[in-house]
Amino acid sequence: MQKVVTFGEIMLRLSTERHLRFSQANFFMANYGGGEFNVAVSLSNYGIPTEFVTRLPDNDIGQSALMEIRKRNVSSEHIIYGGDRLGIYFLETGAGTRGSKVVYDRNHSAIADINVGMIDWEKVFQNTSVFHWSGVTPAISQNAADVCLEAIKVAKKMGVMITSDLNYRSKLWQYGKQPKDIMPELLKYSDVILGDLDTAFMMLGKDKVNPDYKATESLPRFYNLLFEYCPNLKYVATTLRYSISASHQQIGGIFYDKDQIYTAALREVTPVVDRVGSGDAFMGGIIYGLLKQEFDPQHTINFAVAACCLKHTISGDFNLATIDEVEEMVKGNTSGIVSR
Amino acid sequence: MQKVVTFGEIMLRLSTERHLRFSQANFFMANYGGGEFNVAVSLSNYGIPTEFVTRLPDNDIGQSALMEIRKRNVSSEHIIYGGDRLGIYFLETGAGTRGSKVVYDRNHSAIADINVGMIDWEKVFQNTSVFHWSGVTPAISQNAADVCLEAIKVAKKMGVMITSDLNYRSKLWQYGKQPKDIMPELLKYSDVILGDLDTAFMMLGKDKVNPDYKATESLPRFYNLLFEYCPNLKYVATTLRYSISASHQQIGGIFYDKDQIYTAALREVTPVVDRVGSGDAFMGGIIYGLLKQEFDPQHTINFAVAACCLKHTISGDFNLATIDEVEEMVKGNTSGIVSR
Amino acid sequence: MQKVVTFGEIMLRLSTERHLRFSQANFFMANYGGGEFNVAVSLSNYGIPTEFVTRLPDNDIGQSALMEIRKRNVSSEHIIYGGDRLGIYFLETGAGTRGSKVVYDRNHSAIADINVGMIDWEKVFQNTSVFHWSGVTPAISQNAADVCLEAIKVAKKMGVMITSDLNYRSKLWQYGKQPKDIMPELLKYSDVILGDLDTAFMMLGKDKVNPDYKATESLPRFYNLLFEYCPNLKYVATTLRYSISASHQQIGGIFYDKDQIYTAALREVTPVVDRVGSGDAFMGGIIYGLLKQEFDPQHTINFAVAACCLKHTISGDFNLATIDEVEEMVKGNTSGIVSR
Amino acid sequence: MQKVVTFGEIMLRLSTERHLRFSQANFFMANYGGGEFNVAVSLSNYGIPTEFVTRLPDNDIGQSALMEIRKRNVSSEHIIYGGDRLGIYFLETGAGTRGSKVVYDRNHSAIADINVGMIDWEKVFQNTSVFHWSGVTPAISQNAADVCLEAIKVAKKMGVMITSDLNYRSKLWQYGKQPKDIMPELLKYSDVILGDLDTAFMMLGKDKVNPDYKATESLPRFYNLLFEYCPNLKYVATTLRYSISASHQQIGGIFYDKDQIYTAALREVTPVVDRVGSGDAFMGGIIYGLLKQEFDPQHTINFAVAACCLKHTISGDFNLATIDEVEEMVKGNTSGIVSR
Amino acid sequence: MQKVVTFGEIMLRLSTERHLRFSQANFFMANYGGGEFNVAVSLSNYGIPTEFVTRLPDNDIGQSALMEIRKRNVSSEHIIYGGDRLGIYFLETGAGTRGSKVVYDRNHSAIADINVGMIDWEKVFQNTSVFHWSGVTPAISQNAADVCLEAIKVAKKMGVMITSDLNYRSKLWQYGKQPKDIMPELLKYSDVILGDLDTAFMMLGKDKVNPDYKATESLPRFYNLLFEYCPNLKYVATTLRYSISASHQQIGGIFYDKDQIYTAALREVTPVVDRVGSGDAFMGGIIYGLLKQEFDPQHTINFAVAACCLKHTISGDFNLATIDEVEEMVKGNTSGIVSR
Amino acid sequence: MQKVVTFGEIMLRLSTERHLRFSQANFFMANYGGGEFNVAVSLSNYGIPTEFVTRLPDNDIGQSALMEIRKRNVSSEHIIYGGDRLGIYFLETGAGTRGSKVVYDRNHSAIADINVGMIDWEKVFQNTSVFHWSGVTPAISQNAADVCLEAIKVAKKMGVMITSDLNYRSKLWQYGKQPKDIMPELLKYSDVILGDLDTAFMMLGKDKVNPDYKATESLPRFYNLLFEYCPNLKYVATTLRYSISASHQQIGGIFYDKDQIYTAALREVTPVVDRVGSGDAFMGGIIYGLLKQEFDPQHTINFAVAACCLKHTISGDFNLATIDEVEEMVKGNTSGIVSR
Repeated sequence: MQKVVTFGEIMLRLSTERHLRFSQANFFMANYGGGEFNVAVSLSNYGIPTEFVTRLPDNDIGQSALMEIRKRNVSSEHIIYGGDRLGIYFLETGAGTRGSKVVYDRNHSAIADINVGMIDWEKVFQNTSVFHWSGVTPAISQNAADVCLEAIKVAKKMGVMITSDLNYRSKLWQYGKQPKDIMPELLKYSDVILGDLDTAFMMLGKDKVNPDYKATESLPRFYNLLFEYCPNLKYVATTLRYSISASHQQIGGIFYDKDQIYTAALREVTPVVDRVGSGDAFMGGIIYGLLKQEFDPQHTINFAVAACCLKHTISGDFNLATIDEVEEMVKGNTSGIVSR
Repeated sequence: MQKVVTFGEIMLRLSTERHLRFSQANFFMANYGGGEFNVAVSLSNYGIPTEFVTRLPDNDIGQSALMEIRKRNVSSEHIIYGGDRLGIYFLETGAGTRGSKVVYDRNHSAIADINVGMIDWEKVFQNTSVFHWSGVTPAISQNAADVCLEAIKVAKKMGVMITSDLNYRSKLWQYGKQPKDIMPELLKYSDVILGDLDTAFMMLGKDKVNPDYKATESLPRFYNLLFEYCPNLKYVATTLRYSISASHQQIGGIFYDKDQIYTAALREVTPVVDRVGSGDAFMGGIIYGLLKQEFDPQHTINFAVAACCLKHTISGDFNLATIDEVEEMVKGNTSGIVSR
Repeated sequence: MQKVVTFGEIMLRLSTERHLRFSQANFFMANYGGGEFNVAVSLSNYGIPTEFVTRLPDNDIGQSALMEIRKRNVSSEHIIYGGDRLGIYFLETGAGTRGSKVVYDRNHSAIADINVGMIDWEKVFQNTSVFHWSGVTPAISQNAADVCLEAIKVAKKMGVMITSDLNYRSKLWQYGKQPKDIMPELLKYSDVILGDLDTAFMMLGKDKVNPDYKATESLPRFYNLLFEYCPNLKYVATTLRYSISASHQQIGGIFYDKDQIYTAALREVTPVVDRVGSGDAFMGGIIYGLLKQEFDPQHTINFAVAACCLKHTISGDFNLATIDEVEEMVKGNTSGIVSR
Repeated sequence: MQKVVTFGEIMLRLSTERHLRFSQANFFMANYGGGEFNVAVSLSNYGIPTEFVTRLPDNDIGQSALMEIRKRNVSSEHIIYGGDRLGIYFLETGAGTRGSKVVYDRNHSAIADINVGMIDWEKVFQNTSVFHWSGVTPAISQNAADVCLEAIKVAKKMGVMITSDLNYRSKLWQYGKQPKDIMPELLKYSDVILGDLDTAFMMLGKDKVNPDYKATESLPRFYNLLFEYCPNLKYVATTLRYSISASHQQIGGIFYDKDQIYTAALREVTPVVDRVGSGDAFMGGIIYGLLKQEFDPQHTINFAVAACCLKHTISGDFNLATIDEVEEMVKGNTSGIVSR
Repeated sequence: MQKVVTFGEIMLRLSTERHLRFSQANFFMANYGGGEFNVAVSLSNYGIPTEFVTRLPDNDIGQSALMEIRKRNVSSEHIIYGGDRLGIYFLETGAGTRGSKVVYDRNHSAIADINVGMIDWEKVFQNTSVFHWSGVTPAISQNAADVCLEAIKVAKKMGVMITSDLNYRSKLWQYGKQPKDIMPELLKYSDVILGDLDTAFMMLGKDKVNPDYKATESLPRFYNLLFEYCPNLKYVATTLRYSISASHQQIGGIFYDKDQIYTAALREVTPVVDRVGSGDAFMGGIIYGLLKQEFDPQHTINFAVAACCLKHTISGDFNLATIDEVEEMVKGNTSGIVSR
Repeated sequence: MQKVVTFGEIMLRLSTERHLRFSQANFFMANYGGGEFNVAVSLSNYGIPTEFVTRLPDNDIGQSALMEIRKRNVSSEHIIYGGDRLGIYFLETGAGTRGSKVVYDRNHSAIADINVGMIDWEKVFQNTSVFHWSGVTPAISQNAADVCLEAIKVAKKMGVMITSDLNYRSKLWQYGKQPKDIMPELLKYSDVILGDLDTAFMMLGKDKVNPDYKATESLPRFYNLLFEYCPNLKYVATTLRYSISASHQQIGGIFYDKDQIYTAALREVTPVVDRVGSGDAFMGGIIYGLLKQEFDPQHTINFAVAACCLKHTISGDFNLATIDEVEEMVKGNTSGIVSR
């Protein structure tokens, strides 16, 4: 089976436990994660060969991240080493009406100083079916954006399917460029885009349309704008999230193949153990569906939504659910009975 | 007051905390528990003299289990020592739509190699009012099943009331026998049976009837089949459990004395701290009701359901609630206000 | 800006984690808190200069409490040292239908032996706008009640606004006096009273009226009785709490200024991380509202209710929410989305 | 076999971990212990039937202490319930040149208010070979001292051997009496005294002699003064402790039977895991030696010193070593090889 | 570079922390390890390609072991899956005069039921320079011994260097065979043997000689007996361990190449953080020395001893030291200064 | 009493516990510390008014550092806010022959971007007796060096005594300047210098002399070179550290007042709980001695060495010892007996 390659940043995640606020913590749980790597972990759990490409600092913290990559059975063969530090994000886990809080400390990380030419993308993309990247990476630095484009172009040239998660983070994009300066060039090679319509339009420099995702018949005309812009585009997927509280979410999804809108009904997610990475779990589900011939679009969106829901019950950035667990949920078994 | 004796296996329970999946854990919480011992702990908390009979390995892990038995004020006087190991079960605690997961590692435990004649049951059952066993024990090995029968026969001979929890676990019964080969002979001495109808019929080799527990008027004709088979049978109790999610259960119960069906209304249990052992808490409530003269059948089933619900809020296998706490809930006080 | 002074007891709080029952714990989380200090912390978080007055034992446990006072930016300038011990309370955190349980071990604490004249209240109240005390302090000992009265009289003389939280605890009041023997003299100097009507009436030796807080038009005639008794009284505030379970509360509030009843609608609080100190968070919100000129009575009660709700999501006695977080909730944003 | 009874206080011990100072701790390890109970645990581990008599408060903390008593297989049959609180001691564990620090919070505990007549000592001492008490108990309160005397007199009348550990704590004795006012009457019934000479003389109101314990030939004339005072005295034992640092102790012992001095050579104890309770482990060894016919005085003092040394390697108040482990050390095997 | 293959059992290791005895623990640290895998980890840390071959149960505990194998960058390509359970060992960490205690619970593990033919050794040994096994594996079961022989024979045929660690564990060998029945046939293919002389002679069915390892000139005549028995033997290495206490070891080593005895001077190891796996660290050092052309025999034994010493400072079974750290120690830098 | 002001960086310290290596940790202990702040904490514990000046990022991590400053009773009045991030250092705690390992992640911290003029030093130094800084601060960035010089000049102008700790860290000084480019101008205002001779000479651009600190008579001629360079210099102090292992240090000190060499004898420090910050504890002792009129130079150096030794027994960066504890050690009491 051909592999899926993802490219981006992996960070040290330092979180408080038991919903403690930062000023109450005298230790932090240490995990490693990042959007594009999280997608690779999802796929690796489903038995897909995966590879993660990044730049890690050549110190013990970088090594610890590398060991997590290995542990999760994701290839680290083309990771490069150098730079100053591993990016960090601090996470205070909310509850009820108090949302979780992220303090980013990811400036000046190893990947921010990456340069075009450092990674041999032609080698990376041998035996590759899918290349996945997200809008977080070009938001880090011009260098990261340049390498992202470099990768996308090689992938396209080599016939690799390109999946793009818009993943807008307003606290990033600090290096003088706006999404609309950078993202159009990157997005136009996409085979699949994950994101909501207004984020896509913002990134492409277009006006907000404020679509009503429940009026599904109205959506194609908006989604089609993306198909116009991206000549290779085959699918767009949107996660629907209604936040009742930090502990209670409703999750659904939309999948559009230019012909038809496929929707997955809203599911109740309560309690929420950890919602960070749930979008990546959704993306992992979409890619898995595209790779499996027996999955039709409806099953793909159902699978992605179920994976996203299950992720909320798992601590850390990763969706550690198995295919069987996701499929059980797709079938409607959400009773959470003890498996024994 | 005469004592209640229970017989079965006590295991080391190794559970992950904070809903971690197994592959995320670098330590396991260590508790000790097992269905029949859990019933004894419930009753001991209610002030009933209790004794637990088992076989423990003669090593430090067996000793640690013994200390938990002592701590909970359950007599260990007739426990025997020997064999290879203490059975273990690993528990991954679920949340929401992700159910908890049990990995059994209980083969070849000390009690699996027990032999008829090792325990002097006549001594054990002096001053005993109730003998409680469950369908887990004969599922372990032929030896355990034989000793179970030995105990039941002595108990019956000495006029001890026998309470039987069907407790079907499909992952056990690995030694070449099916429940229907073993259970009929054991169950027929029962004064009280705990379980649902189809499990009982399966164990007795009868066909499934798929009863509607909400149509209470239809139930006696099914329950009466058990009374036909078990000449001493006085009561059958069934726990009703509707699993909304791993974190939300609805619990009710049915108690039948051959004359009349007594039902306890469904209660909402949310959140679930730990549902393992909640059936044993129910059983402990039934036995307590049978021992207390002032309890009528309706109060008994109410008490058992309330105890079962409270167990879900307590970590570990045991129902550590007091009589007052259970009675408060029976009265309808479920507001969870701070006691101070 | 002038400071807010609070006077009372700070205790060592020893709580079990993960909902463990006391007999399951082999360690206790250590926090420091107490009603009047908790109010000071709330206000300090909102940027108000605050001071806490108490008596601490001159040992390492007292010093550790002092360090928490400093950490939270509350002045300890007039704290006095001596006496036998720091009061302790043990807390078992409930869940669902099992309420939390407090075991008090606060007898013979340093503040119980405090004497009139030990604290130079004239110095304390320089540059002070508000003096806050609660009914817990006079419940400790005659000495503590005497010093409370001493403080109130000096405060009144110096023109300091006096806020009184009724805070009835039936397990206190063990020194031979009842609230009605002590509280009337203390309460009559109040500018603001926090509490429900029947507690106020009980403390003033009057009959119970069992008011219907949802029939707001009926309330003034009861509240007015308090205005009759307390010549300086300007506001009465009442927290409304409906306890669905230990994990689910509904919180609202009433604020009355002798002219008009202001109500804040009930809010759902689920899950509850820690409800201890939520009344103090409410009180902190009321005082903050009184100090901010831009707050009208309606905003004040809305703010107090929102602060009370947020406190339920925070572990320990303190409301560690910021003004922005409380105001977001007042505006209706309770979606708990991730801040990143 | 006849039982050993000990009488005294059991406390909640709250200790910091990893050598943290009090102001650094945000949780405390919770153990239960106290000198006389610790002796009972030692003997119970050696297979001797034991019973502990005390007064416990009737709350959850008292219950938790009771469960530890049960867990360690010490009878709690004659414990009485009532009073205000369980005594507490806080422990900061030192290292190297920084000694451990104890903050006592044991005033007003349940046993301080015990009264003569509350315990039926004649029932307690049925089938009893040894009654053990220590100088800590009469140091708590006049009431505790009175009950101590009451117990000693009944024990003597019933022919029970009385072992007395001098156990001087200068921070106790706060109720207006000095050791010399109380201890002479209590000590004179002793069959065995554990303690150093100058503590004994101080307690009996005699002058200090500052003996040289290495000049063993000079010791009998001092020890004989105790034999003069206590007509039943048969043995005196003294623990020799040279404190190199908090992490390194040298432990030896002296045992005198009026005829002959028996000494156990100094042993190196490094590192020290926990030295609290090591004197009680020594005492447990002496009593065990007296109960075993095959132990001569030399073996008894060797055994007591070895037990004391092993205790230093065990966390908490208790000596959890087995007879085999102690005997291995008596034989000189201190190599600490892995048992596997 | 060619890889090193090791074959054996990996177990779940459940250890108490802070030197707690088993009966004090309410959780266990979870690590994964086993002698032959530990050697692979050492070599992987030194940059050598390694592979571990074993049989793992197909459950979550087996998967967790697999993830640790991946994390440590050891190939798991030829691991097979099946069988009942992962072996477990419980570890109580000693201190000072109290040795650590291991309770084995490894019977009936997946590897015990392995069968000849299950592993394709010819595939395994492609591109392999060294095959390492130890005497623990044939001690588990006849099946494991048979597969061990199968592997050795294929390795020999394919020209792979065979290193054999005698690793005698008296608690194993429970299946009716003694080492002398099994080990001679296995050992005779060895290129390198690690062990002491008397263990080797016992395994070969010869008499004990009780050699004086400090009289190095006397050793060749004993070692030569091994060379006589094993026609391919090139080196024998012996770890010298003098156990002052559980916290203080002295470690040296001997390396003999049939020509000459090379000794590494005794090093002081204090304190001991964890000594389990230190023999495997020694073995890893020997193999590394044999693979590095620039290492002469003296440097090899120095390196192995240094690695063994460093392992004692690291928690868990693995030697996680880098080459630089080991070489620093070889050079005599044992000052433990802070690297910053 | 006049205050002591220190200026520098405070960092988040993330350390592994139980000697775990980085790759084994799944959480990090969180402390806050930094050389100059550590000195302030020492003095604050001794009852000296202290103030710490720094620049903190305006986020939750900066706030948490601020709370630690407050907790330790150090004034934060003139701290300024802004910049990107709080510096971090990761600490892996060694044992025995394995030294601790620090991974710095302090680039781009808030203080690195500080600018001349941001702090009103004239206000800061009101009522100030001592200004303390160290060579770490000018090693961070040119900006930090400039502000350091700015502070020193104002302090000198205002008659404040200046104490300078050389504190060379080779991993810093990354901004293109060497110590000899920057330090001479800063050091020349010093009243007191802490450091060893060769570091001082290196920083002043002079040749290495490799002094023999045990040949005290030879030292004045070297130290005098510093007095020549620094016209205000009154004292030089040098910590003597001999590292036997990470767990065993020998600590002494030298104090020179241009007239006479005062030495404190070497003390054994074993075990080492945490050696980070021990140099700062030494410096705190020197400053304390200079502020106390009753301290002569010999007592000052004795006190500084004792403080330094005690720090090694305390976890975290701070010396949390009291004056009494340090003085006890000065008197020679290093027995580490339990204080109770």
